[in-house]
Amino acid sequence: MMEVQNKQVILKGYIDDVPKESDMEVKVSKIELNVPSQGQGQGQGQEQEVLILVKNIYLSCDPYMRGRMRDFQGSYIPPFLPGHPLEGFGVSKVIHSNNPDYKPGDFITGFTTWQEYSLIPITDQLRKIHPDPRIPLSFHLGLLGMPGFTAYAGFYEICTPSKGDYVFVSAASGAVGQLVGQLAKLHGCYVVGSAGSNEKVNLLKNKLGFHEAFNYKEELHLDAALKRHFPQGIDIYFDNVGGDMLDAALLNMRVHGRIAVCGMVSQQSFSKPKGIYNLFNLITKRIKMQGFLQSDYLHLYPRFLEDVSSYYKQGKIVYIEDMNEGLESAPAAFVGLFHGRNVGKQVIRVASE
Amino acid sequence: MMEVQNKQVILKGYIDDVPKESDMEVKVSKIELNVPSQGQGQGQGQEQEVLILVKNIYLSCDPYMRGRMRDFQGSYIPPFLPGHPLEGFGVSKVIHSNNPDYKPGDFITGFTTWQEYSLIPITDQLRKIHPDPRIPLSFHLGLLGMPGFTAYAGFYEICTPSKGDYVFVSAASGAVGQLVGQLAKLHGCYVVGSAGSNEKVNLLKNKLGFHEAFNYKEELHLDAALKRHFPQGIDIYFDNVGGDMLDAALLNMRVHGRIAVCGMVSQQSFSKPKGIYNLFNLITKRIKMQGFLQSDYLHLYPRFLEDVSSYYKQGKIVYIEDMNEGLESAPAAFVGLFHGRNVGKQVIRVASE
Repeated sequence: MMEVQNKQVILKGYIDDVPKESDMEVKVSKIELNVPSQGQGQGQGQEQEVLILVKNIYLSCDPYMRGRMRDFQGSYIPPFLPGHPLEGFGVSKVIHSNNPDYKPGDFITGFTTWQEYSLIPITDQLRKIHPDPRIPLSFHLGLLGMPGFTAYAGFYEICTPSKGDYVFVSAASGAVGQLVGQLAKLHGCYVVGSAGSNEKVNLLKNKLGFHEAFNYKEELHLDAALKRHFPQGIDIYFDNVGGDMLDAALLNMRVHGRIAVCGMVSQQSFSKPKGIYNLFNLITKRIKMQGFLQSDYLHLYPRFLEDVSSYYKQGKIVYIEDMNEGLESAPAAFVGLFHGRNVGKQVIRVASE
Repeated sequence: MMEVQNKQVILKGYIDDVPKESDMEVKVSKIELNVPSQGQGQGQGQEQEVLILVKNIYLSCDPYMRGRMRDFQGSYIPPFLPGHPLEGFGVSKVIHSNNPDYKPGDFITGFTTWQEYSLIPITDQLRKIHPDPRIPLSFHLGLLGMPGFTAYAGFYEICTPSKGDYVFVSAASGAVGQLVGQLAKLHGCYVVGSAGSNEKVNLLKNKLGFHEAFNYKEELHLDAALKRHFPQGIDIYFDNVGGDMLDAALLNMRVHGRIAVCGMVSQQSFSKPKGIYNLFNLITKRIKMQGFLQSDYLHLYPRFLEDVSSYYKQGKIVYIEDMNEGLESAPAAFVGLFHGRNVGKQVIRVASE
């Protein structure tokens, strides 16, 4: 049995505010590069988890992970365990497995842990990747992964778009927003995005094909910015940020508008969130405001994979990644999400393919 | 032509906060008891309004009317005109008409003005009443009128109820809430209502058939009150009040819960509404929160009228009215809505039937 060093990113303790680098630490442990022999210490009749040993190639930094850093059991996914590596989506290569469906060298994507090598259970959420030279492997964490599917399910299922709709997307160059905007444009909608730097605004207009975009940090009044970009009002707001932008969007929705509540990355604290003041517009404009999770729509995943892969290969959509090198860069990259430091989907390259 | 005195309730000027009696004044003007002869001063080719002269029997006090007392054109219904009588739903008797469909003595319901006699246009929103001795005429302003239809459309169309759902209704003894609760119970749901006095709580439990009810003014923590009444959480929240109760309900919704946003009678000010802090739950619980107006569902009105009249005549539902006597009592009765002084649907009897 070969034992190797295994770098890992550990959660030090639970937090309530925006994550800081010091909330995590990079440690080096050791791991044997094989699946432990089965049956040890397990009682009879007990369902046995089938494990595989993988080498993590790419790890995904996603804002939802922050929700797992707090000491709160009531959410849709349990909190991380302090003292243990973070968990998140990854693209990994099988190193050792006793299951013939997962052979050494196979690429898989699904939940893994933030270390160089992980021992992970085979669940129905693991997906084998059939590498396609036209699609970067890391795209299985973004365009073809959870964020891309979030955009797809949220836009089509929650926003119920029609051709000609006026669509606003916040955090529009992010992992989810950039695909929402492109899907909306393909659908015949008019699309405006907001982002937090002129570089991102430039990408939105010149690379991602948004009709218009603005830097919210340069706007004194978000309400005025939205009125300038949507003199006729907004039919669909795909909300990735919550807070003041949501409040301003509420003032600018059209009758029967729809708000897909996807994320609230602007919130600085779970226990002291910012107030939203303009919900009265829900009534006067008969607005539907709906939160959602992609995991409720997994029956649509095969169609999503086919549609979006096909759009990408035809050059109808593009996808921007922000790739950091090395597991030690992961804490800073993750923290950067909450300060808008990433440009596009934030991924960590842990090892070469 | 007979000219008579005509008492009226005039809006003195626009307001932003909760209405006060001094925002209105009762005046006496004069009116001729016939429809003015047509064609005077109207240009050729111009659509001519056909008017009828009615005697108002019952006038409806509804919280939405407050929205018409502010100087804001962007809502679904235009503001009142200062110096003129308020407008609202009424049950009226035709006094004079040149239209054979509306004969003297006919009872109608629809928009009228807050005076003893009104000259009102015949629109497709006017409805002739076929008096039924088993149903009080004033119920056309409540159970069978706009509030009742709001309850019906909101509950069935927005809340998409299932048998066994846990349903919470705020302002539950009010014009809308009392019917929502009874429809929910008939549908096989578990129903809890909140109200602002022990008298109302008593009515909810002992007359309106709610499974449970509580006086929110006696609760230190609304979150704790809801957790006590809904240990399993809330599937449907029919929100008539907004504010703190909405915020507490958000904390207690179940996965895939639905919030029908019907009213925000708790709001003290349009320009300085209270903040809502718990919208993050929309995402984690995948909640749909939807504002609505009954006027979008008028295609369901005939079915509503049939269903609810039939329930009432079979004794399956009851309806509580708060009847004030005389037009001069209208300002105080209307203001009382915003302080919970009404017990049941607030109506003004302007004249005997």
